[in-house]
Amino acid sequence: MAEIRIGEYLFRRLKQMGIETAFGVPGDYELALLNYVEPAGLNWIGTPNELVGAYAADGYARLKGAAALVTTFGPGELSALCGLGGSFCEMVPVLHIVGYPSFAAQASGQILHHTLGDKSYDHYVRMSSELSCATAVLKDPSHATAEIDRVLNAMMYHSQPGYIGITEDVVKTLVPASALDATMIKMDLSSGTEDDRALATIMAALEVSKNPIVIVDGGAGRSSWASHAIDLVKSLKSLHFNTVMGKGIVGEDDPLFAGCYAGVGSSPATSKAVEQSDCILWLGHMPSDFNTGMFTEDVKSSLVIDFQRFHITVGQKQFQAGMNTVLPRLSQSIKSSSILSQRTPPTPVEYFLEVPLEVPSSIISQAWLWPRLSSFVKPGDMIVAETGTSQIGALATKTPQGVYYWTQAVWGSIGYAIGAAVGAAIAGKELGQYRRMIVFTGEGSLQLTVQAMSILNRHGVVPYVFILNNNGYPLSP
Amino acid sequence: MAEIRIGEYLFRRLKQMGIETAFGVPGDYELALLNYVEPAGLNWIGTPNELVGAYAADGYARLKGAAALVTTFGPGELSALCGLGGSFCEMVPVLHIVGYPSFAAQASGQILHHTLGDKSYDHYVRMSSELSCATAVLKDPSHATAEIDRVLNAMMYHSQPGYIGITEDVVKTLVPASALDATMIKMDLSSGTEDDRALATIMAALEVSKNPIVIVDGGAGRSSWASHAIDLVKSLKSLHFNTVMGKGIVGEDDPLFAGCYAGVGSSPATSKAVEQSDCILWLGHMPSDFNTGMFTEDVKSSLVIDFQRFHITVGQKQFQAGMNTVLPRLSQSIKSSSILSQRTPPTPVEYFLEVPLEVPSSIISQAWLWPRLSSFVKPGDMIVAETGTSQIGALATKTPQGVYYWTQAVWGSIGYAIGAAVGAAIAGKELGQYRRMIVFTGEGSLQLTVQAMSILNRHGVVPYVFILNNNGYPLSP
Repeated sequence: MAEIRIGEYLFRRLKQMGIETAFGVPGDYELALLNYVEPAGLNWIGTPNELVGAYAADGYARLKGAAALVTTFGPGELSALCGLGGSFCEMVPVLHIVGYPSFAAQASGQILHHTLGDKSYDHYVRMSSELSCATAVLKDPSHATAEIDRVLNAMMYHSQPGYIGITEDVVKTLVPASALDATMIKMDLSSGTEDDRALATIMAALEVSKNPIVIVDGGAGRSSWASHAIDLVKSLKSLHFNTVMGKGIVGEDDPLFAGCYAGVGSSPATSKAVEQSDCILWLGHMPSDFNTGMFTEDVKSSLVIDFQRFHITVGQKQFQAGMNTVLPRLSQSIKSSSILSQRTPPTPVEYFLEVPLEVPSSIISQAWLWPRLSSFVKPGDMIVAETGTSQIGALATKTPQGVYYWTQAVWGSIGYAIGAAVGAAIAGKELGQYRRMIVFTGEGSLQLTVQAMSILNRHGVVPYVFILNNNGYPLSP
Repeated sequence: MAEIRIGEYLFRRLKQMGIETAFGVPGDYELALLNYVEPAGLNWIGTPNELVGAYAADGYARLKGAAALVTTFGPGELSALCGLGGSFCEMVPVLHIVGYPSFAAQASGQILHHTLGDKSYDHYVRMSSELSCATAVLKDPSHATAEIDRVLNAMMYHSQPGYIGITEDVVKTLVPASALDATMIKMDLSSGTEDDRALATIMAALEVSKNPIVIVDGGAGRSSWASHAIDLVKSLKSLHFNTVMGKGIVGEDDPLFAGCYAGVGSSPATSKAVEQSDCILWLGHMPSDFNTGMFTEDVKSSLVIDFQRFHITVGQKQFQAGMNTVLPRLSQSIKSSSILSQRTPPTPVEYFLEVPLEVPSSIISQAWLWPRLSSFVKPGDMIVAETGTSQIGALATKTPQGVYYWTQAVWGSIGYAIGAAVGAAIAGKELGQYRRMIVFTGEGSLQLTVQAMSILNRHGVVPYVFILNNNGYPLSP
């Protein structure tokens, strides 16, 4: 019977999932583990610190669907937690792999470095469990492959981080290679138990609606669903909108795109069009403060059809049905509906402002910058916008179909943009297409994780980085 | 009755403890809190990121006895956890103050930024509780000052981090200013219940000993005890040693200093002198791997008198007695003992190597560098040595009396040195004496927290930074 080391099993599993790069920072208890990265067919990209590694993994996963971060026990893993918290609340599947001291060393009763000095080895997994949909510290080798699969499945199912701790001894233990043949979960194929009823209810609502609209929101922004959202918008031929978190899924160059909806943060014409609709198909609504103009959305929930990962809500009625299975069928049904195909086409809403002609004097204004960037951004580009000024400002930059755009509208961690850009740029390179990486960040945000830039050139990706100096981050009085 | 805002109460308490600077990074939920820093008489030093802030607070506390770090809920506080873990296991009292969303916002049932999106607000304090000797999230204003004092007292008592979360509404609530008059704990004044018995037992052991020695270890390295350790060494006139973690407390320019003891990592003469002693006064023994030559210390526990924060162990007998109260009395007793004063003076042990004369060609060797630095280091200097190469190498650099020296021999987090140097340098400046800051770090370690250097010049402290390029941190194959 062919056998394989547990360390290699883990990385081969990741490779099967489409992960081609592991990010991380080397450390003592993790060195044995790192020996298995490249033999499993993955690339290793060391990052200057763990927080940059976590952000890079997040950016990579947003483009490729999943990512892996490897750190060492204690200082290494704790330095990554802020990044993983962001992946958790923004629904990005990142596997955090942590190298642990051997069980023999743990059992010695001695004080090992990277511990809290109290001979306890479960502090850190407890901490990570707050930010993970599943955790495992591999103990019994006979259960190790099942435990690894459990965490990976949970990670993909919930689209959130998982945590696997592996000791220096367990990593080298042999297990049957046949475990690699077990089927991993595929979210795209799973359907809900109420898909049929949900579809019928949605179609009934649409067919009596006078002015339905689509809002493409953050929960629709996972790679496997992006195409479904585009199909829906094309089928329905209604006005469509996005949100701060939903930008970059459906092209804003479409004539029926009618703006970013963020309550009172929207343009008046956009707000009006949304708030007067009698049927709102809302794909992946994420009602966080930054995504809703600080909770100023003004729509009746009875008019909303809310598509979420595990359920669809039509008015007050919730169906156990999923975006990923219902959306493609809905697009087909719309195309086949004689009622919907005879609907009066909606009147377009002008959203993007004219580009101001005046040349700036000494100070570049936001009004001058953002609309002007619309002619710079091209299909295929990837954009990461930092929380705050960049996130709000970039709403005025038109992102045509084919542009990838990411920003943190829940986590809102400054320093994220340049780190995520590293990972997304690497992922883009792996996908083999020409992709420019454009980063919008601030002079304060950039300094949190500026060392991320050191590894971009090393891997042949050179981003455009717009650094906005808004003096918003004074360090001294 | 005079009243004071809870935010101001907190910072005034810190000022009473001798803390003159608060470190941190501004963030949304913390802005109300920051308004009270300067009115309370503290300086605010914004750091480029939270990890640097945590390391800076640790360095500051090592010199001044305590420190404060202020971050915002979620991303901010999580980014600091690695630094606070180090303060925990290395026994450095750092108060982590976290700005929380108002209770009104928490109760709204809405998804706030910086949360995990699940409307739960206690994830982060649970995480920090793993690394803190006490935590509080202030809820009821009528208990707030008592809760603040409880955490501060625990922090000073255990010499470990405390955590205080304050919401945007509670921070502004008025409380009686008279609460500021309550006495805070003073560790220096507390004595154990068995001080007398411990002292008598130690003196009895010393008086029958032929060759007693003193080892000054990490647990003796808190500022209030340093002088007691020096007095003991001067009184006993025995050979004395330090450890990786205990360097920088008693001057190595003393003729009776006989080396750094780290088991097989020690020089042969040092090992021999330690391992042949029949009575070892070990001040604050910290038996971590990095501090013991990977657990190769070879002394009989029956010969050791181990002085710890809350107890003293003589052979198998443990006394509830403290280093801080017994040590000064022990020095007095030794001076008064006719037996001990008639002891034959010990033969000095040569520890430091001759400085090699040859000029390096293209490569600077460790053998050339470290002994040579002995003539560079001067009393009053502060040195921070990074874990690893610097930590081991610097043992060959003589640190005379009056040099402050810090390294992490338990936590071992690379990136620590430059961050801690920032904080210690600021503390040194506050103490009003001329102090050079010397940092030994590596080319890999430095990149984790390189932005720390950006704030040194800003505050008028310019360190000497020795960056050792050992190619130990390859980022690419």
